[in-house]
Amino acid sequence: MGLVIMPERAETLILLETNLDDMPAEWLGPLLDQLLAAGALDAWFAPIQMKKNRPAVQLSVLCPPRQAAELRALIFAHTSTLGIRERTVLRYSLPRRTETVDTRFGSIRMKLAEYAPGRWKAAPEFEDCLAAARAAGVSLAEVYAAALAAWERGECENSDGKPESR
Amino acid sequence: MGLVIMPERAETLILLETNLDDMPAEWLGPLLDQLLAAGALDAWFAPIQMKKNRPAVQLSVLCPPRQAAELRALIFAHTSTLGIRERTVLRYSLPRRTETVDTRFGSIRMKLAEYAPGRWKAAPEFEDCLAAARAAGVSLAEVYAAALAAWERGECENSDGKPESR
Amino acid sequence: MGLVIMPERAETLILLETNLDDMPAEWLGPLLDQLLAAGALDAWFAPIQMKKNRPAVQLSVLCPPRQAAELRALIFAHTSTLGIRERTVLRYSLPRRTETVDTRFGSIRMKLAEYAPGRWKAAPEFEDCLAAARAAGVSLAEVYAAALAAWERGECENSDGKPESR
Amino acid sequence: MGLVIMPERAETLILLETNLDDMPAEWLGPLLDQLLAAGALDAWFAPIQMKKNRPAVQLSVLCPPRQAAELRALIFAHTSTLGIRERTVLRYSLPRRTETVDTRFGSIRMKLAEYAPGRWKAAPEFEDCLAAARAAGVSLAEVYAAALAAWERGECENSDGKPESR
Amino acid sequence: MGLVIMPERAETLILLETNLDDMPAEWLGPLLDQLLAAGALDAWFAPIQMKKNRPAVQLSVLCPPRQAAELRALIFAHTSTLGIRERTVLRYSLPRRTETVDTRFGSIRMKLAEYAPGRWKAAPEFEDCLAAARAAGVSLAEVYAAALAAWERGECENSDGKPESR
Amino acid sequence: MGLVIMPERAETLILLETNLDDMPAEWLGPLLDQLLAAGALDAWFAPIQMKKNRPAVQLSVLCPPRQAAELRALIFAHTSTLGIRERTVLRYSLPRRTETVDTRFGSIRMKLAEYAPGRWKAAPEFEDCLAAARAAGVSLAEVYAAALAAWERGECENSDGKPESR
Repeated sequence: MGLVIMPERAETLILLETNLDDMPAEWLGPLLDQLLAAGALDAWFAPIQMKKNRPAVQLSVLCPPRQAAELRALIFAHTSTLGIRERTVLRYSLPRRTETVDTRFGSIRMKLAEYAPGRWKAAPEFEDCLAAARAAGVSLAEVYAAALAAWERGECENSDGKPESR
Repeated sequence: MGLVIMPERAETLILLETNLDDMPAEWLGPLLDQLLAAGALDAWFAPIQMKKNRPAVQLSVLCPPRQAAELRALIFAHTSTLGIRERTVLRYSLPRRTETVDTRFGSIRMKLAEYAPGRWKAAPEFEDCLAAARAAGVSLAEVYAAALAAWERGECENSDGKPESR
Repeated sequence: MGLVIMPERAETLILLETNLDDMPAEWLGPLLDQLLAAGALDAWFAPIQMKKNRPAVQLSVLCPPRQAAELRALIFAHTSTLGIRERTVLRYSLPRRTETVDTRFGSIRMKLAEYAPGRWKAAPEFEDCLAAARAAGVSLAEVYAAALAAWERGECENSDGKPESR
Repeated sequence: MGLVIMPERAETLILLETNLDDMPAEWLGPLLDQLLAAGALDAWFAPIQMKKNRPAVQLSVLCPPRQAAELRALIFAHTSTLGIRERTVLRYSLPRRTETVDTRFGSIRMKLAEYAPGRWKAAPEFEDCLAAARAAGVSLAEVYAAALAAWERGECENSDGKPESR
Repeated sequence: MGLVIMPERAETLILLETNLDDMPAEWLGPLLDQLLAAGALDAWFAPIQMKKNRPAVQLSVLCPPRQAAELRALIFAHTSTLGIRERTVLRYSLPRRTETVDTRFGSIRMKLAEYAPGRWKAAPEFEDCLAAARAAGVSLAEVYAAALAAWERGECENSDGKPESR
Repeated sequence: MGLVIMPERAETLILLETNLDDMPAEWLGPLLDQLLAAGALDAWFAPIQMKKNRPAVQLSVLCPPRQAAELRALIFAHTSTLGIRERTVLRYSLPRRTETVDTRFGSIRMKLAEYAPGRWKAAPEFEDCLAAARAAGVSLAEVYAAALAAWERGECENSDGKPESR
């Protein structure tokens, strides 16, 4: 694409990881929400295979450095783990803004991110689409398509039809 | 959604499955394409964990009954397996047709499927989008959005703006 | 264990499966709850690897035969799939009952299942434990341990301390 | 490969499956060996994602029909599950025999399977290779390579150098 | 939970990682035990999907810095890999001790870890439970429940019934 | 194995990671090849489970530090992600060379890597084997076995039959 590289914003974050092989999956269910409520930027599971034929789970938690101690305490309190691995990562983020488009399913916010100088990518806001889809009794796909189409139309008007200007 | 149920088309297919723990992943790479070229309707891998701590792979192959013997022969010849499980499945499919939309990236075919009486879902054809994205030096997301927008516009014209009619 | 085999209850169910490689994970999030609300007995995802290097997802849905057509319609309406595989399975279930135990975190229901003649296995009810853990500000592990301990105590009283009688 | 299709041997087997989300991975570790010791032909785990954000495990067990009731009893006794899905599969197997080759690491059995009329595939016996590798303090790869080379040499002698005859 | 944060113990460890796509799963089986025997603190596999449609495996090994060179040598000798990624992690651990409880299945050690000042979490020792379950011909679940119940009883006696004191 | 540790070569590389839950798998298919073409040393997917019940994918990309900015730009342009995690890893590599062996399927290159002083491990070059297997209409396994056997023979001649000298 002959990409012109953006001066992205970078920040130092903490990534916490732990392997869980001695607690039931059913206790893990509420954990991601608890971690996000306590200040984690993201949290996720990955399937792993540990010693002694154990099909286990790796928990990963991304957070600002100032939240790390509290999130470690929460992981220690709510999981069976006796050890948490911690490392520092740089996170690069794109400049963002939000716009709203009108669709036949109502207003939907679009998340816009500048991935190259003057070029923006757009994605409909999930929660807006979910609410609209439920209200109208249609699928998420229909609402997304309507939102993308509305945004495309607006873009073309604003940009005199020049795709390069996005 | 108060769904009215479609009279879908159903056909009897064969699903072949085998567990692979004694051949390298690198030999598995070309296998899916070989199976598809030999008449499989679909073929995929899933990660599994077998006895003796082995992180292995399950191969699944979907095919018409008349292709099953040849595909079993191909699996036996090209993998390490000594046994293949076979079972019959019913596959329900939606009525389909293809339409073409014009976008600023060129013509893109849309796959249309009638998921409820008179209601169609639409998806841009992957290979068309890939070719257009490469030609224009843009992302797949941009081409998909343009195709969906073009299709939405056409729909609205054809249907007098009634979303119910799709 | 020299198991005496139980006369289990068996019923015929339908298992629906489909591979999803052309819709975002974010649309899949609400799907399991939708399927369960519409009469599925269970629904789950598994990671698969499809042709053309696609890291995709297999959806599985277990349901009574009378729900199958409606659940297929829901899957067709809310996912990108054009085909759903269906097969019949026998499901064997254990005789069950529920009892309640008193713990320092309040009453907790125990799910009891007779896995061999006269032998019952017990598991605390997840939703009761979650509510109790949140109310008391403790971990799920603490509530489960308290419930299991309360149930063990009761068992020992009822059974004159004979573990064989459970 | 212009494959001539073998008259494979087919037999009817039972496939048992259950989803496990309320027991720790550590209890699952010994399960595969227990199942194999009790007559299962194969048993394996697959990572799945269940309702309520639970990263869970699917257990699959393949067995002859006459073993199914006992294996269900074992699964019910040793896991938390309350329901087991059962279905019938056909398993196609290749004709097999075993030969022994001499290597600088000692004798190694080769598993031979006739995958097309007159064409055999060969694989060193894992347990023989493991024992030889440990005795010699070398890697499994070295023992496998030596065994394959010994078998290739013997094949060439026996077959007057004609690869087609294998 | 209004957690009071523990002054955990932190130590610097090494995490080794490598992607394996050109060796059979069957050779990977003995690897975790070999690594643990050679001084690894933990070792595990994760399913990954590599270029050219290869369903492969990532090996991770956690170890003290002084063991890293020897473990890299072992990985290079026993796997097909040509490159190993290494990074430093901090591992936070909880203060621990072991206690023993008496159950109707015999003595079982409990692993205790102080996850907040004055609050301990307890887990039965897996190997003790496995031995007891096999000796008594019962499931792991029964032994765990008995051990947790015994520990709960002792706790209540020691602590005058105050759950806060654990 | 009483391993003598090699003075491996170590270099500092960058590992980029991002979680993808809002783009279809079908857009991910071409991504690995694009990343490798743009200078990535390796790139792979892993299945993860994110908040809100989303079965998602983690993308990992390994590259030299000078390529990191361009690869981040490519990931931002071609995926839906708004943030990329970056960290530094040391990569240890073995000394390598290539040799060619003659087989009944033609010449095959062997990748040789010195994993301990004076000890080399050998693996047939995948692309050579694939081309030879297709030309001869045989399986990859047959070509690998022929290549390993040819290399073993040459080794034995060169080394006076001493396995220690490899």
